[in-house]
Parts: sequence; C-alpha cells; structure tokens
Amino acid sequence: MKFQSPTKKHIQLLKDILSPERVSSGQSNLDLHSIDQSHHPPSRPDAVLWPINAQEVSDILAFANQENISVTAWGSGSSLEGNPIPVFKGLVLDFTYMNRILQIREKDFQADVEPGVIYQRLNTRLKHTGLFFAPDPGAHATIGGIIANNAGGIRSVRYGSARQNVLQIKVVLANGEQITAGSRSLKTSSGYDLLDLFVGSEGTLGLITEATVRLRGLPERSVAAIVSFPSVKMAAKAVFDIIRSGLEPAALEMIDTNCIRLINREDSIGINESPSLFIEFYGVAKAQLEQEMDMVREISRHAGANGFVSGIGDRDRNALLKARYELGEKIRRSHPGRTHIVLDVAVPISSFPETVSFAKQESSVTDIPFYIFGHAGSGNLHLVLMGKTDDPTEWAAIDRINESIVEMAIRQGGTATGEHGVGIGKKKFMFTEHGTGLKWMHNIKKLLDPQGILNPGKIFPLSK
Amino acid sequence: MKFQSPTKKHIQLLKDILSPERVSSGQSNLDLHSIDQSHHPPSRPDAVLWPINAQEVSDILAFANQENISVTAWGSGSSLEGNPIPVFKGLVLDFTYMNRILQIREKDFQADVEPGVIYQRLNTRLKHTGLFFAPDPGAHATIGGIIANNAGGIRSVRYGSARQNVLQIKVVLANGEQITAGSRSLKTSSGYDLLDLFVGSEGTLGLITEATVRLRGLPERSVAAIVSFPSVKMAAKAVFDIIRSGLEPAALEMIDTNCIRLINREDSIGINESPSLFIEFYGVAKAQLEQEMDMVREISRHAGANGFVSGIGDRDRNALLKARYELGEKIRRSHPGRTHIVLDVAVPISSFPETVSFAKQESSVTDIPFYIFGHAGSGNLHLVLMGKTDDPTEWAAIDRINESIVEMAIRQGGTATGEHGVGIGKKKFMFTEHGTGLKWMHNIKKLLDPQGILNPGKIFPLSK
Repeated sequence: MKFQSPTKKHIQLLKDILSPERVSSGQSNLDLHSIDQSHHPPSRPDAVLWPINAQEVSDILAFANQENISVTAWGSGSSLEGNPIPVFKGLVLDFTYMNRILQIREKDFQADVEPGVIYQRLNTRLKHTGLFFAPDPGAHATIGGIIANNAGGIRSVRYGSARQNVLQIKVVLANGEQITAGSRSLKTSSGYDLLDLFVGSEGTLGLITEATVRLRGLPERSVAAIVSFPSVKMAAKAVFDIIRSGLEPAALEMIDTNCIRLINREDSIGINESPSLFIEFYGVAKAQLEQEMDMVREISRHAGANGFVSGIGDRDRNALLKARYELGEKIRRSHPGRTHIVLDVAVPISSFPETVSFAKQESSVTDIPFYIFGHAGSGNLHLVLMGKTDDPTEWAAIDRINESIVEMAIRQGGTATGEHGVGIGKKKFMFTEHGTGLKWMHNIKKLLDPQGILNPGKIFPLSK
Repeated sequence: MKFQSPTKKHIQLLKDILSPERVSSGQSNLDLHSIDQSHHPPSRPDAVLWPINAQEVSDILAFANQENISVTAWGSGSSLEGNPIPVFKGLVLDFTYMNRILQIREKDFQADVEPGVIYQRLNTRLKHTGLFFAPDPGAHATIGGIIANNAGGIRSVRYGSARQNVLQIKVVLANGEQITAGSRSLKTSSGYDLLDLFVGSEGTLGLITEATVRLRGLPERSVAAIVSFPSVKMAAKAVFDIIRSGLEPAALEMIDTNCIRLINREDSIGINESPSLFIEFYGVAKAQLEQEMDMVREISRHAGANGFVSGIGDRDRNALLKARYELGEKIRRSHPGRTHIVLDVAVPISSFPETVSFAKQESSVTDIPFYIFGHAGSGNLHLVLMGKTDDPTEWAAIDRINESIVEMAIRQGGTATGEHGVGIGKKKFMFTEHGTGLKWMHNIKKLLDPQGILNPGKIFPLSK
C-alpha cells in the first residue's frame, strides 16, 4: 500500500484538530462516502472528516501530508465518473458544513461562497436580486464540486461551464499552504492562470475553501420550443444547423424517444414520442425572441422536423426542465437489476451529428437498453447504457461501446469528457487525448502534491 | 551574467538549423527587436532568428536550453509593458514568417493559424464567411502575441479576452519538447487546463507554434451611440449603471476630453468635447436594439448625460473606432520630447467610478499631460501619462502615480493589468496582487523551464 492507513492515534489527533463529533469511522458514514452516482465500485474511506473552515482544512492536509495519509474531498457525491470515491481509502473531507454564502455583491454580479453550498440554494437566495449562478448540473451538486469538475449543464451553451463562472478561489495545497488564485476583476493578464489550473482538477491539486463566483442577470423574457424529428440523426443535424446559423440559444438539448417515453410516463407532459430538441432563448425584446424562434422553425423544417411546439409556458417549461434534470434518476429507476453507465463526450459542433449516429449504431448492436440525450448545442453527448448488474458479458460489451465512442470523439478533435471529469472511468483515454501533454499534467501534480495524497487513483492512467 | 552569450560558433550552428538568411546579427535587426511600444528602455538581442515551422522552433530551443542561451519570442512588437524586450539579450525568435492561416473550419467557428498571423489579416480573410476573431488590441498584434499576453480590446466586454477565444495550442517547451494543450471541443473537463496556463504566460513557459482560435458570427445588425457627460466621474458612474442594468453591449468605451480633442483635431469627427462613452449593441432584431438603446438613453439621462447621439452610421462608427485604435499613437505624436506610459488596471465594475476618479485626481497633482480612456464595460482603465523624456523628476512622479493607482486597483479586488500583461513594468506589483500564489507561479516556471531561458526578466519581481 502506497499510503498509510490512519491509526487510532491518527484519528485521535484529527479529533483534536477538528472536534470529536466531526470525525467519524462509523460504518454508515463510511458507506455513504464510498460511492458517487456512477457505476464505479465502492471503496470505503478509513474516516470521514467535516471541516468548518479553511484553517481546519489546512491543518488536516499538513498532518495528512506529513503522515502520508490520502485525502479525498467530498461535495454531495453526485458526480458520475467516480471522481470522489476514495479508492485508496484514507480520509474523506466532507464539505457539508462549509456551506455559507459569505457575501453577495449584486453590484458586481459576484458572490463569495464556501465550497459546500448547493448551487440551487445559492440561486434561491439570489432570486430577489435578479441574478443567478449559471452552471446547473442535474443533481444537487455543491459549488466546490462543480468547480472541481468544471461541470456545465443545460445553460453551458450560453454561459459556459464552471470555468467561465468562477473568478477567484482560495485553495489549500497538499502541504497545508493556503493560496488565492484568480481576480475579482472580470479581466486580467496578471501572471500565470493558477485559477484555471485548479478548476477541473478534481481535488487532485488542492482543496477549494472559498470561491468568488460570477453571477448572470436573469433574463427579462424567454421563449422555448420543442421540435420533433423522425430520427436522432436528423435532430442532431438540426442542432448543427441551428448553431451554424449563428443563433445563440440559452439551452439546446437533445433527447431521444426512449427518454421522452420515460418523461411522458412519469410526468405526463405529453411530448411527441420521437427524437426531440428543447430550445430556449433569452432576451429583452419580444420581437427579437420571435425572430429567433422563426429562424429555428425554418431551420428545423428544412432539417425534416415533423413537430414544432413553441410558446411553451413557464409551467410546462419548468416541468420539462425538472424532468430533464431527473432523467438520469428516472432511467435508473426504470431498470431494476441493471446498473447504468453515463457516457459524456463532446465534439466540435460539425461532428455532432456523426457522433450521435455512431453512438446509436454502436449501442444498437446489443440488447442493452440505452438512452441518448445531451447538451447538444455545445456538442456534448450523453449516452446511458443499462447493463445487467451481474452480467460480465454485458459489461464487457458496454466497455467496448464506451471505448469506441470516446475514441471516435477524440478522433474528431473532441474530448473524452465534456463535463463529468476524468475520475476513474476516463483515465484510460487520457494519453490518447493529450499525448505527451499528459506527462506535463503529471509533472504539475508532482509539483503541487509531491506525495500524491490528494484524491489518488484519479485522472492519471497509471495512478492505480 | 546568468546566460551565455551566443558565440560565433553558436550563430553558425543556428544558421545550420535554420538557414543563413534567417539568422541575423545586423545592427538594424537588433535595434528593431530591442523595443516594443512601451517606455521601457531598449535592450538589443545578440541575434534575431526567423523560424518557419515548429520543428525549427523545437530545434532552436533544444539547442539554446543545452547551451544556456536565453530566448525571447517576438510577434509584432506592439506590446505595452516591455513584454518582448530581450532584457538578457540572447536570441529573439521572430514569428513573422510563421504567418499561415492553416485552415478555416467555418462549420465549427474555428480557424487554425500560425502565431505570426496579424489578427486583422485573419479577419479580412474571414469576411466572406460571416465570422470574425473577436480580440482586437489596437495595434497590428499577432495572434501569438495576443494569446501570450491574454490581450483583449474593445470587444472583450462581450467576447472576452484571448483566453475566451482560443481552444487549442501547439507549444514548444524550453527543452524543445512539443505538446498540444486544449481541445477543439468548446467544452471539456479532461484533465488539467494546460491551455490556460500558457495563455497569458508571455512566452515564459513555452512558445506557441499553432493555435486553434474560436470565431464568432458577425452581427446581423448593430447600433451605436456616443453619450457625453459633464465629468469623467459621471461618465464612469454611467458605465457602472449600464452594466448593472444587465445590458450586454458589444463595446462600452470611455474617453476623456483630452482624447476627444485629439481625435477631433486629427480626424474631424466632431464629437462633443466632454468625457464620453461609446456604446454599441449587436443583435438580430431592430426592436431589441432600439429597446437596448432606449435603456442606455434613460440610464445616461439619470446619470447626468448632457449629450446623446445615437443612430451613428457605419462610416462614422468606423472612423471613430479607427480613431480609438490609433489613440495611443495620436497621443504620442502630439507630445514631441515626451515619452508615454500606459497604465492598464482592471477592477470589479462597482469600483470603476471610484478608480477613475482616483486616477484623475492622482494625475492632476502634476502638470504632466494625461489621457484617460479604457474598455470601461469590463472595468478596464487606461491612463496615458506623457513625461518629459529626460526629466527624472517627472518620471519619479509618474512612478508614484502609477504605483498608487495600481495599488488602489488591487485593494478593490482588481488586477495590476487587465490586458497588457506583466512584462517588465508590472513585476513589482505581483506579490501584492498574488501573495504566496506568486511562489507557485514561479515553481511552475521552474518546472517547465528549469534554466529560465524563456523570456527572462519578466513577470517575476526577482527575475532581474
């Protein structure tokens, strides 16, 4: 074993650093922190710690670094690639209690938050200000987790992922040192971009203890439409045509027939049961939104759409968005005895139709149920495959399908992961995607965390 | 001397790597590469090299690294903080001949270019596609220089700086190794963000030999207005009010009376000679643009505007933009015997009015001529001070003014440089702005360039 298992003495010392009730080795706590929402096998930590401030995080890391004990940060465990599973056991730092919204600077469209803040809670708090935090991964993600994974969501086609929505972070490094990265200025050319080095580093370079996030103005007006197509391929082609036209939707989601059937069954929204796009525009003037929608209608017609429902009211739209957010959960529930894997690739938009077709074709060669959806406007495709939990043949097939799609995406100039991060599941594609760049990522890891105590077993293919 | 001066033998070997006519130690070439457009003192390199491909760049760096000869990359020398001045002499790599536009992928809104491409040439080439590259620093900057400095310009309030407009780069490291950083996918969470580490690193971490840049759609329609105010302070307050309202202009520039006088004198555009804002919106529908302009008019009225000229036609607007681009040059020409210094700070938008007032007040205590302007919508302030070239008292005063404004900007949560980079002039503020983060920037420098041969004497305060 590369790391030391914390001894009773270590645990006692950690209880002294925090306080006894915020250090637990109880089985139920260890179990809760052994899994995320992915299919990756559980691994229990030796202890779970709940720090309440940066100094405690610093003290824990300094101690763990000295004793060579591994440390994995934990937000809400809603990630999809095993990102916070403590594969080398050791300590899990659960940021649940560091959940204060420290300051909202409305005038600057900024807020300072602790990493444990659930993003929906921030948005609820912001409602009266007319502002919101744009990244919106489906589950109850924390802002720390969103930043650590560079998560995106439905609005990323307009507002970008976490990277485009965080200005400054406070970070504790592996040795306990505390630094600040980034600036509260929207614009800066001051030295190396340490901020973006930590964003998306999945807790392997340092732990975020505070973030200044960028807020956006809630739209004055918005319009939405659902457009149906005879095939997924045609829907994907329409996505490309819409983006190619220069339109800038606030959301452009694709969902296949299987997804819609599930949504209709559970939420009785009553959408056409064929591959569909959900598209939304934000703006100030009604005329602009109407013109944008007219363009979408025209483009869709040319692309072979067989259904176009616009003027969707707020109630239906919220129901639909809620259904979309809960899609992963719905899929899982509808297949007892099966386990899901969620693919997440992203490609340049011109390659999106081909990538979707390829994903469908690859998935269709087996009888494994599958669902295609995604943040289509950003070229981001998700594919859920539901394998029989204990059927190694099905899982071998799933692995093959996964690999062929990821490798196809990389060949198109795309990426192995659009928004879920590398975690455990995408490690094996890192060299194919980054070539010798990967070695330099690893050199940076060794520089910032020489003993490798931070979230070991992630990102790097040889890390386990 | 920390580095080795290239000997005759070295020069001969470099001529063998390239070809004799692309290696020069002629005085005029050395002089041309001894200055940028800043006030920083000239320093001549020992030789200038013109590589034509990545392999040559790699061979040169491997050789220079082995022989401990310093290497400074050169775009068009239009930077404003001494960024490419070879303060330790050695070799200058001039990328003029690496100026091919390799591929335009219209469908993906992307282009692959070599670093020596002047951005206006790319935009000219793109015209028929309806696309453009958004960063637009005033001078004839190269794309390599724009990326290396994370440069911005007038459109950065809408499209961001270089960082938001580059997707992938090929880089040669100090030891000659070639890596690719970033992805052609708009969205990625795949490993550490090496791309953004190189963007804005001013040629101190590696040299860019190719870039995939992101293109934007040219606006279908646009409107522009010039709004005048009784004082710079009121104009700056209106900037804040406009951004605070949630409006998203394509440009929001501030220019003070001195600047306007110069523009009127040289270009006879005939703008009101009082502090003014230039504001532009892009959109699809006329109604939207009219509504946005109405909001600006209303906000400006409340903020005390005493002039509002909207509906500015294309011809006047182009003349005005051209005048704005050439402002620095105009200012310099109008003060013979004086040398300019261009301040460049950026602050959170709520601090912009106060920062502008402070800058004006600090500059007013001397008789040194000054000009206030800036990309106001992004909180980015420029201040040009024209000091008597050989008057140490004036330059001591300028240093004090510069320092007090930069330190004030940093106290507001802002940055020592919004878009000009650190170069030589902003080194001394790096610790104040970044604290212990600076040490980690330096550690990254040592990791990627252990001998420090790449653009030495820049960014780090102790580097000279």
